[in-house]
Amino acid sequence: MKHIDTSTIEGMEKRQRVKFINSLPGFKSLNLIGTVDGEGATNLSIVSTVTHLGSNPPLLGYISRPPSVDRHTLTNILETGVYTFNQVSASIYQFAHQTSARYPKAVSEFDAVGLTPEQRDGFVAPFVEASSVKMALSLVETVDIPANGTVLVIGRITDVYLDEALLGIDGNIDLEKANTLAGTGLDGYFRPHLLERLPYAKAEGDR
Amino acid sequence: MKHIDTSTIEGMEKRQRVKFINSLPGFKSLNLIGTVDGEGATNLSIVSTVTHLGSNPPLLGYISRPPSVDRHTLTNILETGVYTFNQVSASIYQFAHQTSARYPKAVSEFDAVGLTPEQRDGFVAPFVEASSVKMALSLVETVDIPANGTVLVIGRITDVYLDEALLGIDGNIDLEKANTLAGTGLDGYFRPHLLERLPYAKAEGDR
Repeated sequence: MKHIDTSTIEGMEKRQRVKFINSLPGFKSLNLIGTVDGEGATNLSIVSTVTHLGSNPPLLGYISRPPSVDRHTLTNILETGVYTFNQVSASIYQFAHQTSARYPKAVSEFDAVGLTPEQRDGFVAPFVEASSVKMALSLVETVDIPANGTVLVIGRITDVYLDEALLGIDGNIDLEKANTLAGTGLDGYFRPHLLERLPYAKAEGDR
Repeated sequence: MKHIDTSTIEGMEKRQRVKFINSLPGFKSLNLIGTVDGEGATNLSIVSTVTHLGSNPPLLGYISRPPSVDRHTLTNILETGVYTFNQVSASIYQFAHQTSARYPKAVSEFDAVGLTPEQRDGFVAPFVEASSVKMALSLVETVDIPANGTVLVIGRITDVYLDEALLGIDGNIDLEKANTLAGTGLDGYFRPHLLERLPYAKAEGDR
């Protein structure tokens, strides 16, 4: 096996290092975050750091880069207290990827990339119409990460929208049937196929 | 689309809610965390919350459940300051899943599930021999998450081991060739296939 040590990592060209380090966690979730500012202007951005924090209460987190430069998404979330996560599916990944371009604040990524915003049940933040699994979140707290100035943004899931056929009686959502994709690095889009579902693991003697 | 609101989520049976909420982020990374205590006893646990925090310095985080019950992995990391992440590949996912059973502290999950620990270059924490992409981390800090008592454990990647054939000249690691899997919920193991790699996205007029 090849050994890549700290000095090799530090010696990598910047974009090469970014892709390398972004490959190390493995496959990543892909979501679009929908927000709106105080004037009603919408914003949409792809994120690969959405992580489960707990089921009761139902909390998800994502990592926002340092707020030293203007992060439209985080600014909008702090302003309105609400946002949406929309899973990236096979039919929209190219549009989703394009939201990572640096658009000026006055430009809505919905318009710029060609995705249709959707209002649901009076929720202030926009959903992505074409996404197969989408959810409304209410900001709980932001947690600063001293190590590199990033911010963990924590929200409580208040509403979920999906096709009824995707929801199993055990609570699992069939993400393969939903055509949800996984990502690697900053540029890879993958379609996962089920190998197996395994039963709850028990130690010998455990009941 | 079916609308699942807060009261429906709260009304779910516990395991059903856990699987449902765990499905919402999308596909998740799968890693085995290797640790050792002060006496040299090894521990191994599967985790689906490893997340990229930054590339310079190279930082990864994972979420540890509340330390109110004894978490052997977190206890060992705090004691020794080091640990390993080992991507879960197709040849070891059943063994990896079994590490989620509740073994007593005196039992090493390596022995209990049948995975071989591996020492490399004098690093104190054990790697998983059969994993195709593995890395050594040094603890940077733990960040408490007030919302539910979980802990974000942040480490700096100091060493990476992988087959040279997996590493692209652009820095990307070919995780499909590495047979790395993605997970959903608590029980689904998936093999991802590449749809496309997309170029760095630019807004019109951006250079």
